[in-house]
Parts: sequence; structure tokens; C-alpha cells
Amino acid sequence: MQERFELVQNALDSMLEGKKYATLRDILITMNPADIAMLFSSTEEKKIPLLFRLLPKELAAETFVEMEPEEQELLIKTFSDSELKEIVDELYVDDAAALVEEMPANVVKRILRQADPEMRSSINQILRYPDNSAGSIMTTEYVSLRPAMTVEESILRIRRQGVDKETIYTCYVTEGRKLVGIVTVKDLLLAQDDEMRVADMMETNLISVTTHTDQEEVARMFSKYDFLALPVVDMENRMVGIVTVDDAIDVLQDEATEDMEMMGGILPSEKTYIRSRPWELFKNRIPWLLLLMVSATFTGMIITSFEDALAAQVALTAFIPMLMGTGGNSGSQSSVTVIRALSLDELKLSDLPRVVWKEIRTAVMCGLALAVVCYLKIWLVDGLLLGNAAITPAINLVVCLALFATVLTAKIIGAVLPMLAKALKLDPAVMASPFITSIVDAVSLLVYFLFAKLLLPL
Amino acid sequence: MQERFELVQNALDSMLEGKKYATLRDILITMNPADIAMLFSSTEEKKIPLLFRLLPKELAAETFVEMEPEEQELLIKTFSDSELKEIVDELYVDDAAALVEEMPANVVKRILRQADPEMRSSINQILRYPDNSAGSIMTTEYVSLRPAMTVEESILRIRRQGVDKETIYTCYVTEGRKLVGIVTVKDLLLAQDDEMRVADMMETNLISVTTHTDQEEVARMFSKYDFLALPVVDMENRMVGIVTVDDAIDVLQDEATEDMEMMGGILPSEKTYIRSRPWELFKNRIPWLLLLMVSATFTGMIITSFEDALAAQVALTAFIPMLMGTGGNSGSQSSVTVIRALSLDELKLSDLPRVVWKEIRTAVMCGLALAVVCYLKIWLVDGLLLGNAAITPAINLVVCLALFATVLTAKIIGAVLPMLAKALKLDPAVMASPFITSIVDAVSLLVYFLFAKLLLPL
Repeated sequence: MQERFELVQNALDSMLEGKKYATLRDILITMNPADIAMLFSSTEEKKIPLLFRLLPKELAAETFVEMEPEEQELLIKTFSDSELKEIVDELYVDDAAALVEEMPANVVKRILRQADPEMRSSINQILRYPDNSAGSIMTTEYVSLRPAMTVEESILRIRRQGVDKETIYTCYVTEGRKLVGIVTVKDLLLAQDDEMRVADMMETNLISVTTHTDQEEVARMFSKYDFLALPVVDMENRMVGIVTVDDAIDVLQDEATEDMEMMGGILPSEKTYIRSRPWELFKNRIPWLLLLMVSATFTGMIITSFEDALAAQVALTAFIPMLMGTGGNSGSQSSVTVIRALSLDELKLSDLPRVVWKEIRTAVMCGLALAVVCYLKIWLVDGLLLGNAAITPAINLVVCLALFATVLTAKIIGAVLPMLAKALKLDPAVMASPFITSIVDAVSLLVYFLFAKLLLPL
Repeated sequence: MQERFELVQNALDSMLEGKKYATLRDILITMNPADIAMLFSSTEEKKIPLLFRLLPKELAAETFVEMEPEEQELLIKTFSDSELKEIVDELYVDDAAALVEEMPANVVKRILRQADPEMRSSINQILRYPDNSAGSIMTTEYVSLRPAMTVEESILRIRRQGVDKETIYTCYVTEGRKLVGIVTVKDLLLAQDDEMRVADMMETNLISVTTHTDQEEVARMFSKYDFLALPVVDMENRMVGIVTVDDAIDVLQDEATEDMEMMGGILPSEKTYIRSRPWELFKNRIPWLLLLMVSATFTGMIITSFEDALAAQVALTAFIPMLMGTGGNSGSQSSVTVIRALSLDELKLSDLPRVVWKEIRTAVMCGLALAVVCYLKIWLVDGLLLGNAAITPAINLVVCLALFATVLTAKIIGAVLPMLAKALKLDPAVMASPFITSIVDAVSLLVYFLFAKLLLPL
């Protein structure tokens, strides 16, 4: 795949050099829009407009949609008004709305001037909905039918209207603008009787979302119900648009990326890694780093206040990284599992007691196993093998007891905090590894020194 | 949503108590299969067969597919042979194959005995493909057309064949079993001339996968190209099946979950969190915990070997957690970003130099900002506010220099290791936070003590 792509790219470059535009066009028209856009993005910027003009109208518009905002802006600047109109006319309304949202004000003005009045009003309607809502990702172009239509009339209507619609396979049955049912093209084609009425065959147990439903919930419904499209209605159950499965996939991918970024202590960004400048990466990464660094003041203070104990038993210091590390890992295991289960809707808030009980039992097993292995390791490796006489059985015991207690607290904290965040209507992913590690660090040190005070002659 | 679900559940429970089966059935048939399955899974086990038998045949089969393996097994055990046959006959081939894969041997035998010969051979074919390959998730039921057919003939064929097919919207044009083109129902319905031949309207620039393509790559192609279905061919380009978009969504979700689990230091599991017993959670979590705990021996050894330095300047100990924590967070930020970019195909191996250069610049900015804030914080908080006289400007300088060096190394290691894993054909997600944190811990301690030896009177 990768190699084939580079071959095409090299061939294309040399044809561009040799001005073999006809051959170039013949190759491009055999390609998929997403691939052409990828090819453009690794081509010299000034050559893109030339290549783009080789594409036939429809393919040009499809490719345009797949391109990155920076390249779209660049292209629009080279377009004449009539060229721009040709592209805008070919766009689906949701793609046009997404474009308008990305472009700077002067470009937006040019785009809206070229759009026909109907599209202009649809774009404006979509842009009025809040970011990340169903309304903001829907398209207003869908096939609508009336309950009284027959199968034959419905198919005729689809044939007449379908060319401009993003999907024709699910048709929406409306009555006075209200959504009353859905009918699929499969139902219509497979109907035994052409005179059958839509009202008698439509599915009336409707699953729909409102314009303000969060896009993440919309996307999850696709993954749960295996839809190809989902109707969007307003507060009065009037049909306003549809979300299609391809947009739902993009949302699912974006939300997973966002969760991972938050788990890694990064502010989510809309830009891909390769397109982000170091300055932008810095801005997304520094807030959590600063916050967590400053919060480490507490671990520092704990150590300082037990300075005498450490001075008396220097060997204790050697196990601090191991304790904190294991605690952090135990906690992040639980938090990652719970965060993902929450975002896949597998966990409800009311499951909290079950989750805590499950984590306690898991933590006891993990803690016991780790403590036993740790005791043996310290005895054999640090004691016998490395011959470190400072590490007495008493110190070994303190380390292993602290380890057990740390794993137990870490797993409970790791599981409870994300659910708490959810209850407070925050994104559970905020309570991920970096945050939990900071808390667990402090807890593990406190536990460690308390056991040391209790069991060692300090 | 949540509350409505619980309302339905309570109503259902009380109707079950009162044996109001007719009402119960009337409610169930208005529900979506995925919702019914969810309802069943929170119902007492012994009541499930009773409820299941209330469902009409088609809805019963659709609900069955959505249920968890344990419940499916339980149900099958209560089925008579003829009941089992009714369900199996209604299943799509890919769902039947998935079922056979999950069930124990004796149940599998019963299922295969009830399947008709054609389905039995399709199931066996699908099960022969390696786990996680396109072959293992495809269905062998699709609509195939011949190049010489007219639009009218094609639509007739869809009407006759379509009822058993998972999707009819993309039709595959074959010639001597080889895939030569695709035609969508939209193309057929919107064709101006009913006598037009399929050969003249089909798309011949085909994107297909082979039976052995990894399911992750298949799913990524859906997200890139916005397909509803993707043809699967064998090594001789003969059409053997299709993967549909709903299965691709499941794969995308599962792969994201798997990446997150690996990032959290957990062995990936197929079971949801809520269905995993503590013993299973333990088995998935303990390997990494043990490995990382034992690898912390190195950090312990580093500290032990600098024991004299620590004894001379006890204040140094207080900053160990902050240094290691910030290093770990910096590294995991880079690794999470790179791992996700790799799994979304946004990064190629050949981008390595670009990635390293980007990370170096980002790390310098992060490191500088952190070092400056850290210097001020130690001076103001630990020095002036807390009046800790042991923390001299020299110690402060050592801490901040070590911090800068740690952030720089952590970010480079965090970005390079996942790409290295990819080059070695390993899953990049293995090189995630826990693993990188362990390496960075050791590095940060070494750097810290080296700066201390250089700059402090030890």
C-alpha cells in the first residue's frame, strides 16, 4: 500500500515536470478522492492548483472535501468566482457547512456569495447549532416521503430527487413536517406489491436524536444499532436533517483520539500530529505538565517532613521510585478501564458499588502477588546477590506492606475518580493516568513512611 | 435515556411477575434488538428463555445476535432442535460464524446440525481464515451481477435475491467469479435508461481487500473512503465475500479499546469490564505490574549507588518524585500522540526524522518553561515560604537542569520507541506510558545525580 503510493507519487512528479497533463489526468481519474487528496498533500503547494484543474468537476469536488483546511484555503484563493461556484454547487450541504466553519471570514464571504440561496440558508441553519451537536454534523439533504404514497410513487420520487442526496437508502416519512416513520430502499425494492402504501410498511418505532444531542452520543447509537443514517428532529419532533454513518465513524475516531490525548495528559486538539507545529504541541502539552509538576510540591513536602527517618535509614530511599511507579501503574490500569467502559456506555453511575467491590478484590490479588514477589526479590537480589546489608528483613517488610496498601488505594482511587467526574458532568478522561498518578504518589509516600515509623527503630 | 431504560425494566419486571405476557410482547416488539438484548442482560437468568420466546421469529434472531455469548449459550441449551433451527435459519452467515466461534464444542455441533448445507459450508469457510483477518469478519452473502445485465434485469435480480443479503446497496459485478466492478443501487435507480448495461455504468477502479488483510486495516479503509461495504477477494482476485460498515465500526471501537488498554499497561481482553471477574482482571493486569516492579530494581540500584551523595545533601531526595513524575508525563504525552497517529495511518516510518525534530523543538520549549517555573517555585515556595534553608541556589540549579534534560530525553524516547516497535512489526501501543515511564525514571535519576556530582560539593 505504502510503496504503491510512493510509486504513484514519483510517476506523478515526473509527468508534472514533463507537462504530460493528459496522461496525468487519465491516472488521476482512476483514483479515489481520499487518495488524490493524500497525494496533493505531499505535493509542492504551488503545483496543487494546476493538478486540481485536471480533475473532472465531480471528482474535483469530492477531492476538495477530503483536503486539509490549509490546502482548501490556498486553492480557493486561486479560484475564479465561476470555478468556486462549480465546486460549491457540487458539495453536500454538511460538507459545505464544515468548510465555511474552517475558513477565514473573507473566504467565507466568497463561498456564501457563490452558493445558491437554498444552500446558503441550509449552511446558515447548520452553523447555528452548538459545536459537537447533532445539528452541527447533520446534512439537510434527505429523501422524504408521505405516508399515502405507494411503493411505485416512492421509487419514482427517489429517482427524481436522489441525485442531490447524500444517501437515498433510508427515506423519511413525514406528515406536516413531523417524522412519522422510516422506509428503506430495501423495503421498497423487496415489496411484493407496487401499490402498497408507505404507511402500511414503514417502521414506526423510531430512534431519532434532537439537534442538540451530543455528537458522541449520536455516534454511539450508530455503533449500537448498526444504522446507515439517523434522523435529527427539533424540539417539536419536526424533521430537520440526518446524520450519516461516515460522519459517525469520524466522530467515533475523533472521540477515541481525544480520550487517549486526555489519558496522556494532553489538551485535545483538532489537528493531526504531523500538521501540528511544535508551538501548538507545546501549548497542548505544557498546562498538564506545569500543573502536575507544581502538585509534586506535596510529595516533596512529605519527603522533607520525614527527612530524619530517611537519614536514619538511607536504604528506604532506594524503594521510593518502585513504590510510586507500581502505585501509579495500578491506578492507571483501573482508571483506563473504567474511562473506556464509561465512554462505551458499558458502565452506569449506579454501578459504582459493583465497580468498587470488583476493584477491591482485583487489588487484593494484585497487591498480594506483587508483595510476595517483591519480598523475594529484595531478599534474593538486593540482599543475597548484591549483598546490601542495610536492607534488613524489617525494611523489606515495610516496603512490601506499603506496596500492598498502595496498590489497594491506587486501584480504588483509579476506578472511583472517573465515575465521580462523570457524576459531576465532567469528561471522565480528565481523571486519567497523570492526574491519578499524582494523587497516588502522595498516598504511597505517606503510607510508606507511616509503616516505617511503626515498624522501624527511627 | 438511562432513566427511560430503567423505567421500561421495572415495568417489564412487574408484568413478568403478573404473567401479562401479551402486553409484554406488545412492548417488546416496539423495541430495537440491541435494546432488548440490553434489557435481557439485566434480567434474572432463568427468566430470559421465557421472555425470548415472546419475540416473533425475525426479531428473536436479531436480538439473539446482540446478546452476550454466555446468554446465547444459556438460551441454546433451553432450545429444542426445531427452535434452534428457526434462529439459525434467520442468521446472516457472518453472525452465524461469530456465534460458532464463541460456543463450546457440543453447542457448535448442535448449531451446525441445524444449519442448512449451504450455510454450513459458508460458516466453515469463514472459520478457516485467521483471527482478525478480513476473511474472518466477512459475510459470504452479497448481491452479484453480470456485466451484460441491463439496469432493469439488475433491479429484478436484487428484488429476487435481496431478502437474504445483509446489504443490497452495493452490488458486485463478477465475470467467471472474478470481481470486475461495483454498481450501487443508487446508480441503478438513478440511471436514465433501463436498458443501459451494467458494464457501461459500473465503477471499475476497485478498492478491495484480500481474505488475509488485517481487520484493522480493513476498518481504517472504511473510515478513509466512507464505504458502506468493501469486497473481499482471494489471492486470484476471485470474489469471496464482503465486509459491511457495521462490522468495521465494531473493529474500530475494539482496536481503540485495545490501544487504550495497552497504554494503561493491561493485556487486551475481549470481555467488557462489567462482565470480567476479578480473577480475569487480575490475570490481565498483573504481568505488566510485575514486570515494571522488577524493572524498578534499576532505579533502586541507581539510588543506592549515589547513597553518599544523598546522605550529604538530604534535600536532593525531596525532588526525586517531581523529576520522575514530570519525566514520565512528558514521555507519555509524546508516546500517546505518536501511537495514535500511527494507528490512524497519519504517520509513516519514513517520517521518523521529522518526528524527532518536531519533538526536540517541542521538548526544548516544554523543558525551558518547566525549568523556569520550577526554579521560581523552589525559590519562592520551598525557600522563602517554607523556609527550608537546606535548599541552596546550587541545589535549585541542579534540579532545574536535570528537569530540562529529563524532559528532552523523555520526549525523544517517547516518540521514537513506538515507531521502532512499528518497524519491528510489533504493536506500537506496547511502547506506551508504563514502559516508557520505567525507562525515563532511570534516565532522570542518572541525569539528576550526575548534575549533582558536577555542581554540588559532595
